[in-house]
Amino acid sequence: MPFAFALTAEHPTLTLPVSMLLVFGSAKLLAELFERLKQPGIVGEILAGVVVGPSVLGWIGPNENISFLGELGILFLLFRVGLEVRVQELKQVGRTGALVGVLGVAVPFIAGWALLRVWGKPQIEALFVGAALTATSVGITAQVLSTEGLLNRTASKIILTAAVIDDVLALLVLGVVSSVAGGSVNVVELAMTTAFAVGFILLIGGWGGHAARKVLPPLRERLRIGESQFALAMILLFGLAALSEKAGVAPIIGAFLAGMAMGEALPHRIHELAHGITELLVPFFLAGIGLRFNLQAFSSRSTLLLAAMVLVTAIVSKVFGCGLGTLSYGRAVALRVGFGMIPRGEFCMVVVQAGMALRAIQADTYGVVVFMAVTATLLTPPLLKLAFRGVERHRADTELSVG
Amino acid sequence: MPFAFALTAEHPTLTLPVSMLLVFGSAKLLAELFERLKQPGIVGEILAGVVVGPSVLGWIGPNENISFLGELGILFLLFRVGLEVRVQELKQVGRTGALVGVLGVAVPFIAGWALLRVWGKPQIEALFVGAALTATSVGITAQVLSTEGLLNRTASKIILTAAVIDDVLALLVLGVVSSVAGGSVNVVELAMTTAFAVGFILLIGGWGGHAARKVLPPLRERLRIGESQFALAMILLFGLAALSEKAGVAPIIGAFLAGMAMGEALPHRIHELAHGITELLVPFFLAGIGLRFNLQAFSSRSTLLLAAMVLVTAIVSKVFGCGLGTLSYGRAVALRVGFGMIPRGEFCMVVVQAGMALRAIQADTYGVVVFMAVTATLLTPPLLKLAFRGVERHRADTELSVG
Repeated sequence: MPFAFALTAEHPTLTLPVSMLLVFGSAKLLAELFERLKQPGIVGEILAGVVVGPSVLGWIGPNENISFLGELGILFLLFRVGLEVRVQELKQVGRTGALVGVLGVAVPFIAGWALLRVWGKPQIEALFVGAALTATSVGITAQVLSTEGLLNRTASKIILTAAVIDDVLALLVLGVVSSVAGGSVNVVELAMTTAFAVGFILLIGGWGGHAARKVLPPLRERLRIGESQFALAMILLFGLAALSEKAGVAPIIGAFLAGMAMGEALPHRIHELAHGITELLVPFFLAGIGLRFNLQAFSSRSTLLLAAMVLVTAIVSKVFGCGLGTLSYGRAVALRVGFGMIPRGEFCMVVVQAGMALRAIQADTYGVVVFMAVTATLLTPPLLKLAFRGVERHRADTELSVG
Repeated sequence: MPFAFALTAEHPTLTLPVSMLLVFGSAKLLAELFERLKQPGIVGEILAGVVVGPSVLGWIGPNENISFLGELGILFLLFRVGLEVRVQELKQVGRTGALVGVLGVAVPFIAGWALLRVWGKPQIEALFVGAALTATSVGITAQVLSTEGLLNRTASKIILTAAVIDDVLALLVLGVVSSVAGGSVNVVELAMTTAFAVGFILLIGGWGGHAARKVLPPLRERLRIGESQFALAMILLFGLAALSEKAGVAPIIGAFLAGMAMGEALPHRIHELAHGITELLVPFFLAGIGLRFNLQAFSSRSTLLLAAMVLVTAIVSKVFGCGLGTLSYGRAVALRVGFGMIPRGEFCMVVVQAGMALRAIQADTYGVVVFMAVTATLLTPPLLKLAFRGVERHRADTELSVG
């Protein structure tokens, strides 16, 4: 594209400034409206995507540039959350986090599979929908916990630990289901993939901070470019995100690990710079979720009913599974963790795309899963707010200094 | 794109983290190398695009997502420059700026047209190449002046004023040339377009600051969303960029005006947040220039020779025209302004695309103009450094506080 201002793919009349204004402006407008209605602003930002998107006004489609900004936004969001979290703190809740991760994958998988079987769908399609219900999309929860100043709570640490484990397990489930659909299960290959992913996380999680503290300060001393610390932080962020992809886990896990590794080594200034980027990009991640939503995708009332039932199953099974894993911390914490693990996102889409590529699931199911993911995500912020009611907030310095 | 990580258009194997790492990492690596060779780091960042792009390694093409980030980057760059500049200061050099703008458009236009005529090209093609040589792409100069702490110098203020006027005049030239190629010149329409563009700039430049100071603080008081000031700044930035497009001028002019309007009203914190965004995105703007460069585009030695002559003409005519307009400030300032106005960019591409759409210019000419734009831009930072040698630098607070 030699042109100065790239046009968006689906709506060739929208220039860069117009599409930025439309998405960012509508997100902030609806966030303000929701705050005034004493609802979470984040829900308004997601709904802004529904409103300006194909479902209502149709001003903008889920186009590639907006998606790109949103994906970049969620990387920075997890990076920033990582900056505020210590590995040591996650280790303290490691056993519970693992249990939550395992139950939070197993229960929704079985529940989703069972529902589709009862509904009369073929075995392989049921397995794929079960797999689509497994992975939590931790971005929304992380954003709520971060802006509400709740990242230092026990429930938050359990959620973050469980989300990392959850991601690896969901990958494993998808691998098994895809292999079944493909006709043969290669146990050795699946074991290798999982071991690689686990090894990557343990290596970076365990040694990343140590290595960052050893390598980065002397390296930075020698660099002559301006803002060298920021440049190093970005390279580590993109580098670990790229590596985590190679290792088979989601790039946001790499971004989170990069944030944790750099957490203590980075001065306040880098937090501020990264905060500006997050503030700009996160609305694109949020509205981007809403943009995917398309009610016209439902071809029949029966599909709509199935969507509603998948949604209920997705929420109840996740809250039950994750809550069960946290019961040793008491009911209040269990509920917070359960609610925090509800959101589904990118992984669902990956599963459904894989299923469609293997001709294992029908086109309708795509709409059902997207509906489930968007709606479950929309319901999470108010549920979290409810579960954390009365809990003391700890605002980070950057939040306090809001002018 | 329902997928979590959009693949780039031309290189489907590059995921988001990999393409971010590749462009950002190579830009910073070459910037560091250039700083060590006592050369401007900014040149290294542009060359990084040449190295990883189609000309050398071919790892990545000029793809849409990278362009999008670069275009966003230049918007933020001009916004930030606007934040540091007062309208009053520009008014003081208004007459000189206007003269520089006029001469800096007229001389390159005539020189480019004459060269192509002497070369034996048809009249209409010569007019288009002349038009392509007119508009300065102020982004590179703004970045150099900003990072070197030179924005408060007289030459810098003349450059910024002239760049705004230059943009309107270049638009007028393109309008005339396109009309000639189309067969009829609608004087009324051209006059209307120009009047609209001038009116927009005078209105926002003259009243924007006043309106921002009146409207924004009370509005902000009432908003309940977090970081409301930042959100308002972004909406004003994208809004004025979109409006300036509608008014017929480049979106970066709107971004610059938005920055100037908000300059005094914004607290230090917003500067920091915008600074983080600029630090992330500007390398994509710079490397993006290099990515466009493709030596393989030259079909013959004669084209290569023409490219070299167009390059020399573009540089000499701009320095001469703009320098002439600044002579009342003495030779040193005249040279600084002349060098600062050399870079060409997006506008060239728009002109050549328009010419090709009207079948007025040959495909070869496209390569020639791109070569001229990239090379002229590459030569600007070292020339500027030379012209400002010995001049006292004024580092902004944000630059001083680099950890």
